[in-house]
Amino acid sequence: MSESIEKIDTFVLFGVLGDLSIRKLIPAWYYLERDGKLSDSLKILGVGRKLVSDDELRDKVKESLKTHVSEEYIDNGIVSRLIERFFYCACDLSKDEDYSNLNEKIQDWSMPAAFYLAISPSLFESVCDGLNSAKLISPSSRIVVEKPVGYNLESSQEINEKLTKHFDESQIYRIDHYLGKETVQNLITLRFANSLFSSQWNSKGIEYVEITAAESVGIEDRWGYFDGMGQLRDMVQSHLLQLLCLIAMEPPNRLDDQSIRSEKVKVLEALKSLDKDNISSNFVSAQYTDGEIDGVKKPGYIDEDGANQDSKTETFVAIKTEIQNWRWLGVPFYLRTGKRMASKTTQIVIHFKSDGHYIFNESQESLKGNTLIISLHPTEGISLQVFTKPHGVEKHSTVRSDPMSLDFIKTQKLLNIPSGYQSLLMDILSGNQSLFLCREEVELAWKWCDNALEASNQSNQDLYFYSAGTDGPIQSKELISSNGHSWYEE
Amino acid sequence: MSESIEKIDTFVLFGVLGDLSIRKLIPAWYYLERDGKLSDSLKILGVGRKLVSDDELRDKVKESLKTHVSEEYIDNGIVSRLIERFFYCACDLSKDEDYSNLNEKIQDWSMPAAFYLAISPSLFESVCDGLNSAKLISPSSRIVVEKPVGYNLESSQEINEKLTKHFDESQIYRIDHYLGKETVQNLITLRFANSLFSSQWNSKGIEYVEITAAESVGIEDRWGYFDGMGQLRDMVQSHLLQLLCLIAMEPPNRLDDQSIRSEKVKVLEALKSLDKDNISSNFVSAQYTDGEIDGVKKPGYIDEDGANQDSKTETFVAIKTEIQNWRWLGVPFYLRTGKRMASKTTQIVIHFKSDGHYIFNESQESLKGNTLIISLHPTEGISLQVFTKPHGVEKHSTVRSDPMSLDFIKTQKLLNIPSGYQSLLMDILSGNQSLFLCREEVELAWKWCDNALEASNQSNQDLYFYSAGTDGPIQSKELISSNGHSWYEE
Repeated sequence: MSESIEKIDTFVLFGVLGDLSIRKLIPAWYYLERDGKLSDSLKILGVGRKLVSDDELRDKVKESLKTHVSEEYIDNGIVSRLIERFFYCACDLSKDEDYSNLNEKIQDWSMPAAFYLAISPSLFESVCDGLNSAKLISPSSRIVVEKPVGYNLESSQEINEKLTKHFDESQIYRIDHYLGKETVQNLITLRFANSLFSSQWNSKGIEYVEITAAESVGIEDRWGYFDGMGQLRDMVQSHLLQLLCLIAMEPPNRLDDQSIRSEKVKVLEALKSLDKDNISSNFVSAQYTDGEIDGVKKPGYIDEDGANQDSKTETFVAIKTEIQNWRWLGVPFYLRTGKRMASKTTQIVIHFKSDGHYIFNESQESLKGNTLIISLHPTEGISLQVFTKPHGVEKHSTVRSDPMSLDFIKTQKLLNIPSGYQSLLMDILSGNQSLFLCREEVELAWKWCDNALEASNQSNQDLYFYSAGTDGPIQSKELISSNGHSWYEE
Repeated sequence: MSESIEKIDTFVLFGVLGDLSIRKLIPAWYYLERDGKLSDSLKILGVGRKLVSDDELRDKVKESLKTHVSEEYIDNGIVSRLIERFFYCACDLSKDEDYSNLNEKIQDWSMPAAFYLAISPSLFESVCDGLNSAKLISPSSRIVVEKPVGYNLESSQEINEKLTKHFDESQIYRIDHYLGKETVQNLITLRFANSLFSSQWNSKGIEYVEITAAESVGIEDRWGYFDGMGQLRDMVQSHLLQLLCLIAMEPPNRLDDQSIRSEKVKVLEALKSLDKDNISSNFVSAQYTDGEIDGVKKPGYIDEDGANQDSKTETFVAIKTEIQNWRWLGVPFYLRTGKRMASKTTQIVIHFKSDGHYIFNESQESLKGNTLIISLHPTEGISLQVFTKPHGVEKHSTVRSDPMSLDFIKTQKLLNIPSGYQSLLMDILSGNQSLFLCREEVELAWKWCDNALEASNQSNQDLYFYSAGTDGPIQSKELISSNGHSWYEE
């Protein structure tokens, strides 16, 4: 139980000068400071290769806040309180002897520490070994790594082996920042505290489920990295499958880490594997060509800076899958994600089954089920489409669809802040692993994605194309319309 | 089917100078004119005892609009168009010979006509006879009467006998203006076009139902009239039982008049009768004493102008009842209505059953079901209470309740207009009886109310008291809390 777990006051951030720290983690610490969530004794040690002083780091922190926190939220008092917590230690992470610097710097600090690896996975092993030889690891230390862990099952297993050399599974925090979003966390409450939904959250009540993560950004300066991954590995393996797990899992017995993780693992185990016999009707991959977004011309994927013109890497996938268990018999789960799409939209759409006879006009068109839209971006909230009578004196000759909405940003005064890191950082400090991924989940997700890619390659599936600024290739619509379904459009 | 029914262009309004016409009907005609709903050939003949000219009537119409239509909606062009439709005929309704004036006045008008009786029921018989002897009734004429029809079963039957002397049931339109409200009409769409609700709209999905019509007004200048009625007859017999029927009825086969009426009749037939054996635990009546509403002192019922100090008439009732059929086995329906309560609120609250195990904190308090609030006043709309995670970095230690709302006034740009008469007037013209009451409904409702009053008298039930400006006597809360339920409070 979380009650017995030690609270941590020493946070060591490897890669403090890197992109992730500057853009996401430091701003997240700021919001936590502002909201009074941080213990007085919390200290943060930034680790980097460059030789900078504590004060120079603090200047970098200030700069990060200036750039990445909206001006209206900046308060100098809070900035000062926060930067006092930051210290710096220069360290070449590949050199075992450098870790003694670390030891020296935090010898008076409260222990155990949390080690956050905002660095390349290639350095994970040396960091673990270095921390070990510097005797900085205790059974209560925590180590944090960012998803994706690896780029396929094998590399993921290698990384996990390195981490488990010195850390137990209960000490490893694999972050998927999607899971820090308020709405994602709300999925659990939404599903298990609302009888209206929970009583129909199964194949008797639900017709199909969509999970969409559309991005409007292209690949830009990380072409080389992305081209080795592709959209399936970059987005489905991590974020989309996690959302799927939270939507589909059985009610956990309790809300503790183990109960939730074990339910998520069960979903991944039940996820129908894509193989060469079924891949053609269940998997669409595509790459963007040039097009326009908001009136601005965008190059195609193979014309981006640094691109290889022959690349066959997918920037879009649409997948139809099923969860082979009692609850979800025959309910299609559609996943869709792509780059350079019309807008950045992340949402889960639950299509409830129709239940009844259509009495609202003479054409006897079939009754549609209600739709629950869970938005993660651009807004965070939930919205239920209900059918109502169109206003006016005419009687019931038709129905209209209106949204009943609950906007978490409005009702809960959520800030328009760019990440879910605050909540995850707090979980690391307090030792709550429920929103972090266990090894089994990560590896099952990789295995499923590896199978899909392999099946697609083996059967020489076509790579389709879509113009930048659209919602993907026509084959994505066909994938779902063959079941009489369609992607939700606002 | 309504397709084959004649459209009416001649509307005869008996009591055109009376309160109902001036305050409700004329303004309703205005909104219909404004919205272009009226046929060019529609004419309205106002009938009254006073000798006034057409022009004088038109001045009265203008005056009514000035007083009873919000200034922002008044457009002189529309006013002019409307008053051109109005004509006047003086007529002593008790004199058979006066009806020839009527005949003369509308001899060139299109026939058949609709006759709207905005007059005392004591005159209904002479009007019917007079219309008959003046040969103004054809098989397609319509006659409209306002609820309540009578003050008990017997008087209601007498009135119905008088109407049916010359009119067939299909020609009689018994108005309950509640049923013209957009939200009330929306109940049918809400229930039968939304699978999420319809699939749980029964004893398996619903824990209990509340119907509340609280008024903040007292009795004021109609003390004598009200004292002979009491709140049960004044409000429950008409409005509340109608709402109950719409909430509880089985899905009609079609949305035509007969299908809906016959389903409503079935609800009233299945309504558990209150008798002397069960009345004490199911019926609370009370009278208001002096108190304060919004800081203004209000006298008690027996201190109102014209009051009889010994009156034992109830101004409040709370009732627990059941619908004895398959759908509603064991589901309590609570009705509550009173005068001089804290505010004017009319709402139906559906409490869905809890479905699940509470996992959100350690106290293991039981999970609450969702609540659907259908508001008729002060707003018109629906709102679903959903449980969400309180914002913040804390994990799922508790839930909060947030409303997902659909405000018909906002989404459908409903005007803040005082009545549901527009829609009902259009129904009269087009011959749609589905929102009017059939004789059987009215008489079953009276019978049920008569039984309740008789049982209460026979068992000498206490009349309780409540201060003006409160939500009724404590016994009203006890009535419902004995089942572990409570009245919904915002």
